[in-house]
Amino acid sequence: MASAAIVVIGNEILSGKVVDTNSPYLCRELRGLGVDVRRVVVIPDEIDTIAREVRAASDAHDFVFTSGGVGPTHDDLTMDGVAKAFGVAIEVNDAVVARIERAVGEPANASQRKMASLPAGALLIDAGDLWFPVVVIGNVHVFPGIPELLQKKFDSIRSRFQGVPFVLRRVYVRSRESDIADHLNAVLEAYPELMLGSYPRIHESEYHVLLTLESRDADYLERALDALLTRLPAEAVHKVE
Amino acid sequence: MASAAIVVIGNEILSGKVVDTNSPYLCRELRGLGVDVRRVVVIPDEIDTIAREVRAASDAHDFVFTSGGVGPTHDDLTMDGVAKAFGVAIEVNDAVVARIERAVGEPANASQRKMASLPAGALLIDAGDLWFPVVVIGNVHVFPGIPELLQKKFDSIRSRFQGVPFVLRRVYVRSRESDIADHLNAVLEAYPELMLGSYPRIHESEYHVLLTLESRDADYLERALDALLTRLPAEAVHKVE
Repeated sequence: MASAAIVVIGNEILSGKVVDTNSPYLCRELRGLGVDVRRVVVIPDEIDTIAREVRAASDAHDFVFTSGGVGPTHDDLTMDGVAKAFGVAIEVNDAVVARIERAVGEPANASQRKMASLPAGALLIDAGDLWFPVVVIGNVHVFPGIPELLQKKFDSIRSRFQGVPFVLRRVYVRSRESDIADHLNAVLEAYPELMLGSYPRIHESEYHVLLTLESRDADYLERALDALLTRLPAEAVHKVE
Repeated sequence: MASAAIVVIGNEILSGKVVDTNSPYLCRELRGLGVDVRRVVVIPDEIDTIAREVRAASDAHDFVFTSGGVGPTHDDLTMDGVAKAFGVAIEVNDAVVARIERAVGEPANASQRKMASLPAGALLIDAGDLWFPVVVIGNVHVFPGIPELLQKKFDSIRSRFQGVPFVLRRVYVRSRESDIADHLNAVLEAYPELMLGSYPRIHESEYHVLLTLESRDADYLERALDALLTRLPAEAVHKVE
């Protein structure tokens, strides 16, 4: 079972000026592929912080995804941080410079050469119709912060992450969460591998708790669902999906 | 200058089923109060992971805020994690049990007593009209995951975090980011304390880059803004706010 961590880099998110939509997107897509996202962290545009977080995430997980900090300005420090995480130098990549020059139609200026400066040994993967490739260092996939570009890039390499997907069932319950907690515990004792979520809903009129049951094993999931439905009073169950 | 970290706890966020709106809310509100949010981390419902992250956040920052994992079911492990972070026991709090019993009108059941089980020595702060108080352990403020409740609780104690607010100016620039990077670097050399953000916008027709300039010192900010506007070609500036 593959695990992943997402490292979101950007002062604009920590200061509340921009809402990060990239980590929700990646969580959803990776889950759909069967990858277990274990951690999301949002950190400032600082080389040492980026290096520390990327290193720790890379050591602990199969895949790491970074978002943000790859432009041409002073606050774009992700490449430097990732290079430091892996103890490699930053070098101007001639192939990327050539792509930039084709895209803008003139010789690259200093800022554009900065954008083409990558950790030594980086793997470059073509990303569909985008002129800038996906940059991969070790198990770290460096994505831009602009959501449209991040999504295009992820789409272009998503088959690299295909695993065994989760199967999900939902049970909508009319009871209060505290009235069904014992039933949930009993089901988990019998089905310890079940991923069981319990979420109170305060604005729904027809149910009070959404239960989510998940497993990569569809049979196991159905047996656990049966066990749960057997335990819950019939009148407590609003809907099963 | 006060710093803060936000620890979001919940498998439902990592698995992409729920989008976390609590950390964007807290980032925005804390920024408005002058608190510097330095880190947001989203982690699973696991006692050891919660304990480790809360401990590290508590050591490194003035304020820590947790979101989620405080209900009555098996996956509500935040109180256990926070207790472990501080090396204290979990104990049933009689005052909270009494509040629960007043709210539901009958003796608390086992699940409700679980909700009233708090780290020993926790400070309880009344939260307006909510029956469950804000729980504070050391510098860690434990909030529920339901956004309406989290916001009510934060509102009821926000005056505890009042600092010196940031002043923000915005410059909308028609040039490409790579064409103004040198100017930004020059301004930062003269005004090293300036917080300067540069954000490309690919869907705006009238400008291509949003620059944000921030400081707690309004005079310093205006001098830095003047220096920037002096450097940028007049035709490159679409708007200043």
